[in-house]
Amino acid sequence: MRPSGRTSNQLRPITITRQFTKHAEGSVLIEFGETKVLCNASVVEGVPRFLKGKGQGWVTAEYGMLPRSTHSRMDREASRGKQGGRTLEIQRLIGRSLRAAVDLGQLGENTIYVDCDVIQADGGTRTASISGASIALHDALFHMRKTGMIKTNPLRHMVGSVSVGIYKGTPILDLDYIEDSSAETDMNLVMDENGGFIEIQGTAEGETFTGDELMQMLELGKQGIREIFDLQRKAVAV
Amino acid sequence: MRPSGRTSNQLRPITITRQFTKHAEGSVLIEFGETKVLCNASVVEGVPRFLKGKGQGWVTAEYGMLPRSTHSRMDREASRGKQGGRTLEIQRLIGRSLRAAVDLGQLGENTIYVDCDVIQADGGTRTASISGASIALHDALFHMRKTGMIKTNPLRHMVGSVSVGIYKGTPILDLDYIEDSSAETDMNLVMDENGGFIEIQGTAEGETFTGDELMQMLELGKQGIREIFDLQRKAVAV
Amino acid sequence: MRPSGRTSNQLRPITITRQFTKHAEGSVLIEFGETKVLCNASVVEGVPRFLKGKGQGWVTAEYGMLPRSTHSRMDREASRGKQGGRTLEIQRLIGRSLRAAVDLGQLGENTIYVDCDVIQADGGTRTASISGASIALHDALFHMRKTGMIKTNPLRHMVGSVSVGIYKGTPILDLDYIEDSSAETDMNLVMDENGGFIEIQGTAEGETFTGDELMQMLELGKQGIREIFDLQRKAVAV
Amino acid sequence: MRPSGRTSNQLRPITITRQFTKHAEGSVLIEFGETKVLCNASVVEGVPRFLKGKGQGWVTAEYGMLPRSTHSRMDREASRGKQGGRTLEIQRLIGRSLRAAVDLGQLGENTIYVDCDVIQADGGTRTASISGASIALHDALFHMRKTGMIKTNPLRHMVGSVSVGIYKGTPILDLDYIEDSSAETDMNLVMDENGGFIEIQGTAEGETFTGDELMQMLELGKQGIREIFDLQRKAVAV
Amino acid sequence: MRPSGRTSNQLRPITITRQFTKHAEGSVLIEFGETKVLCNASVVEGVPRFLKGKGQGWVTAEYGMLPRSTHSRMDREASRGKQGGRTLEIQRLIGRSLRAAVDLGQLGENTIYVDCDVIQADGGTRTASISGASIALHDALFHMRKTGMIKTNPLRHMVGSVSVGIYKGTPILDLDYIEDSSAETDMNLVMDENGGFIEIQGTAEGETFTGDELMQMLELGKQGIREIFDLQRKAVAV
Amino acid sequence: MRPSGRTSNQLRPITITRQFTKHAEGSVLIEFGETKVLCNASVVEGVPRFLKGKGQGWVTAEYGMLPRSTHSRMDREASRGKQGGRTLEIQRLIGRSLRAAVDLGQLGENTIYVDCDVIQADGGTRTASISGASIALHDALFHMRKTGMIKTNPLRHMVGSVSVGIYKGTPILDLDYIEDSSAETDMNLVMDENGGFIEIQGTAEGETFTGDELMQMLELGKQGIREIFDLQRKAVAV
Repeated sequence: MRPSGRTSNQLRPITITRQFTKHAEGSVLIEFGETKVLCNASVVEGVPRFLKGKGQGWVTAEYGMLPRSTHSRMDREASRGKQGGRTLEIQRLIGRSLRAAVDLGQLGENTIYVDCDVIQADGGTRTASISGASIALHDALFHMRKTGMIKTNPLRHMVGSVSVGIYKGTPILDLDYIEDSSAETDMNLVMDENGGFIEIQGTAEGETFTGDELMQMLELGKQGIREIFDLQRKAVAV
Repeated sequence: MRPSGRTSNQLRPITITRQFTKHAEGSVLIEFGETKVLCNASVVEGVPRFLKGKGQGWVTAEYGMLPRSTHSRMDREASRGKQGGRTLEIQRLIGRSLRAAVDLGQLGENTIYVDCDVIQADGGTRTASISGASIALHDALFHMRKTGMIKTNPLRHMVGSVSVGIYKGTPILDLDYIEDSSAETDMNLVMDENGGFIEIQGTAEGETFTGDELMQMLELGKQGIREIFDLQRKAVAV
Repeated sequence: MRPSGRTSNQLRPITITRQFTKHAEGSVLIEFGETKVLCNASVVEGVPRFLKGKGQGWVTAEYGMLPRSTHSRMDREASRGKQGGRTLEIQRLIGRSLRAAVDLGQLGENTIYVDCDVIQADGGTRTASISGASIALHDALFHMRKTGMIKTNPLRHMVGSVSVGIYKGTPILDLDYIEDSSAETDMNLVMDENGGFIEIQGTAEGETFTGDELMQMLELGKQGIREIFDLQRKAVAV
Repeated sequence: MRPSGRTSNQLRPITITRQFTKHAEGSVLIEFGETKVLCNASVVEGVPRFLKGKGQGWVTAEYGMLPRSTHSRMDREASRGKQGGRTLEIQRLIGRSLRAAVDLGQLGENTIYVDCDVIQADGGTRTASISGASIALHDALFHMRKTGMIKTNPLRHMVGSVSVGIYKGTPILDLDYIEDSSAETDMNLVMDENGGFIEIQGTAEGETFTGDELMQMLELGKQGIREIFDLQRKAVAV
Repeated sequence: MRPSGRTSNQLRPITITRQFTKHAEGSVLIEFGETKVLCNASVVEGVPRFLKGKGQGWVTAEYGMLPRSTHSRMDREASRGKQGGRTLEIQRLIGRSLRAAVDLGQLGENTIYVDCDVIQADGGTRTASISGASIALHDALFHMRKTGMIKTNPLRHMVGSVSVGIYKGTPILDLDYIEDSSAETDMNLVMDENGGFIEIQGTAEGETFTGDELMQMLELGKQGIREIFDLQRKAVAV
Repeated sequence: MRPSGRTSNQLRPITITRQFTKHAEGSVLIEFGETKVLCNASVVEGVPRFLKGKGQGWVTAEYGMLPRSTHSRMDREASRGKQGGRTLEIQRLIGRSLRAAVDLGQLGENTIYVDCDVIQADGGTRTASISGASIALHDALFHMRKTGMIKTNPLRHMVGSVSVGIYKGTPILDLDYIEDSSAETDMNLVMDENGGFIEIQGTAEGETFTGDELMQMLELGKQGIREIFDLQRKAVAV
């Protein structure tokens, strides 16, 4: 039924490449099928002004799409002179999700910037970003410990994220672009390794969704994120 | 247990004043306790460029806070030269929620702008905005029919919205500022009059939330929104 | 002769509501007929960079119009990314007028921001803003004394402001929107309680004005401002 | 008593150089003592959007200061990314003053931009700008007639402008920078050749001014502008 | 002598990957050693306003660096709200270089945007961009012919580019970051396949360079670009 | 053959006026024929953040064109809200060229801003800017020594600049606007008094240029710059 031939609860093939670039303390290329996002975590001494002198650190994210990561070319945000509302909304979501995974007090007065740049888009860029950023963050924290910037590991758990939706009346997992374009409902889930929810963002496009549909989507999402955690753990075990 | 003495499933007193200003086709001051938002719906001929010639209309929203609507003064966004990410995120949410209530084909090539400006903030400004904007939209559409701009009523249903959260371990309805500031989880619900979900946005602040807590919050929210629909219907019946 | 039936030297009904919102140290809704402006004075510790270390304070103003405060909807300045020339001109005028009323040396290194936001416009928003801001400033200074931030009252006098103009060849007081739109001359006066002039800004629209007309407008304005001072004094006497 | 040794009603030496640059249809360097402003009037076919199809033209002005036209270097507005409030206020004043001199209906659907760029500032740049722009406008209109763009001369009269003020308690004419910096009151007058007022903008700096002082300043200003009209007429008679 | 052990006239290993992403009509990842740039050519119907109705096309380029493509993280230009001078300078250079290779008349009223985004920087990003963009442009033009948008091939020749410089007194070819940081002179050459010069941009850093050094650099650059043309031809022959 | 009747190696008449304005520490109006640029050098205490505490100074440049310095009026960059790519490219070139002439260590922690504002453009504004800025810089440094801000002269040598190009197949020196508009190649050279190259920027417009043509252009440029150095030396000898 799905254009790709996947079953309703089937993730796309997920590939995780660590150390994709050489400068960033954590650098991960994550692929959810044809969606490819480069997640670079940078360790920078100091914290934003509102945290100065409080003895804690900060984790924040920025998100961007290369102009031709999409089917038709989008304007370059740097050239238009501002980031769009969708971009800001996504980078706020990534940032909150990552901060939920870190004990900021153990970070010292350091900031980790995680840049998620979409090389190729085919649906689910924000959930791929979060899932990849979690590993880049892991690697950046490991680098900080190795170089003595911090003594203990502030990472409480990995963060996994996936989209679910109602497509032609059926709940499905991990929507690609074609599915996303005509889905009645689109929902993004972010969870921790203990099954706790960090973020739920569900939007009806056209038709509203019922409580039952919500339950089915949550169930699909939980299963999908469990698989993502397995892949993340395998990736960092190398 | 709640600072205000409310029970966990108790809304704040809600006041709806229609025709609050005289120029807008729909003008509603909505108060959720001490939170006061002015929702003005303006009818403008024509549609944005991406809809030209498609024979349908558009509904969009803008959101702003007066600089001293908050405890300490915020910078004026017009003076800083851009709207912040939170502002853009909220006005996108309001716009999507309202469009879910309107048959855009019946609007003709007209645009309705709904401006939600926060006069005084005490938590829940985005859910108050949506609940008030729904009435302002209703009034603007009525004005369009009365003046012959449209023949039929494009409004499918009212839209209601409320926040729920986990506060000191307990699910509560309609958080005020004090509760919001220390809640473990904050969730905004938007629904239609038939009990369908339009938007769910839940965020864990510090602690993640469980599936059970999610269910309890959804239940509280559904009840609260039912009460809001009653108040909306009473207000427009006058 | 005037569309409203007022005599040439008659002010519109003026209403002053103090403590209109709860967060600001001074909060005044002022109404000149159908023109409604919310004036919030905020006390903020510290001064702009150019005054640091000089042992004095600062008073400044910002002005804005809600997008649908006017007959047809205006673009939101925050969304356009900049304040227009008219806005900047008005907020500079309000700021200068208020500073003329305050002994900045007695303020200490504190800043008072007065935000004048137009809820509904029907002509004369700048003069209503100044007249209302003067009371909001008064209340904020009272708050500073009460809380011990300052020892003495830096307020030298109230500030009153009104518009005058030539309408169909006749000098009139306090123009509403209809009059303003077709007036040959529009002049704004700002004065102190001793009859001294703080600002005069007169503009010929179409036809120039003579010295005689100027004299008549000044006379009308002086009378009008005297009445405004009476209303201000009554308002703060409560 | 004046730092320059001038009497209270004495203008600075005024020099007017037409055709100062070669591209502009009207190009005037005007000098009021050490204040030097280049006023270029450009004729451009077409009108702003709000005037399209109305069969009339438009006259508008832009103002700028070279970064080192002043005692200490100012930031370049193009580099800061916006024009300041003072700049916008001044260019609005110049534009209004020039439009008062032109029958826009006779202009056809053409726009005249008058750029006033301050090469060297020593007080009174806005009044020098207006007085010089009037001649540049005259020359641009002459060019339009000569080239057949218009049939009749839309210029009703020249526009003259000068500043007056209260300096050490005495009303004086045409303040230079030193006087302006310590004047109690600063007023700018714009008039037509028939003695009609186009603009009056008076500001008390520190001390308010009385009605008597206002009368004295107006008298001084009228005399000064008469002299400026003589110089303008001589300049264009060549 | 060179940190990398290369001889003075030795290029870094160059890798060209076509069809690196799937949406762009031409998509090339080009690597000059550790410098990696993604060059995406997008075909868009229509031309910029200044070319409308002239029956010709346009080729333009945009350039960006991912925030962590560099040793330490740079601010994201989209977030700062403007592109820096270096970025604009480079994208203007790329655009001019590509236009020199295309007969714009044969393009029809179509625009090709070439986006050069630096994934990893190690010196020479602008010359790698031009060399890779030339292939992406080639592929996009091939796509246009295949799909019938154009009848003939507007590409006159490939464009090759390389940097040369004076490093520790010796002319060298294709500087990497370490060499670039301490070179006395840095020069970028752009040439066509017939040995004609398209662009020369040489800058002395600290010490000026002599006519003899210039000749030696030009000679090195010509040789290097010949090798690049060989690699380009091999890449597109596949 | 040249529209102006000049021989191929003939400069336009060059005029240098020092102390053109009174506030700047160095103020030079330089004219290359009809091209007129005002170059003002300002001495400001302190250095940009990236140099703080390093015990050295900085020299930087800004460039602008008055809106009607050109044949048809250009938009004012301050009003458009940003400097264009051409402007940034030119001011970066001027800044680098001037820094090549100064021992920044001898400047102390001071900055010299050189503002080059084009009063009238007729081709070659960037080379005229550099040639004039060199003298303004010289004068500003002299002022610093005279007032005791620095003990020794940090100026190593003057900087001269001229354009060369291929026009109708012939190499020519110092292109005016008509020549520049139809030249096949345009090259800007910046040199020091010892014949060393500081910058070479050559661009083929339409046709590429050969090595031989490059040599001829360099030879013409060297001769032209020698003449400019003679004029600079004469100007500062007064």
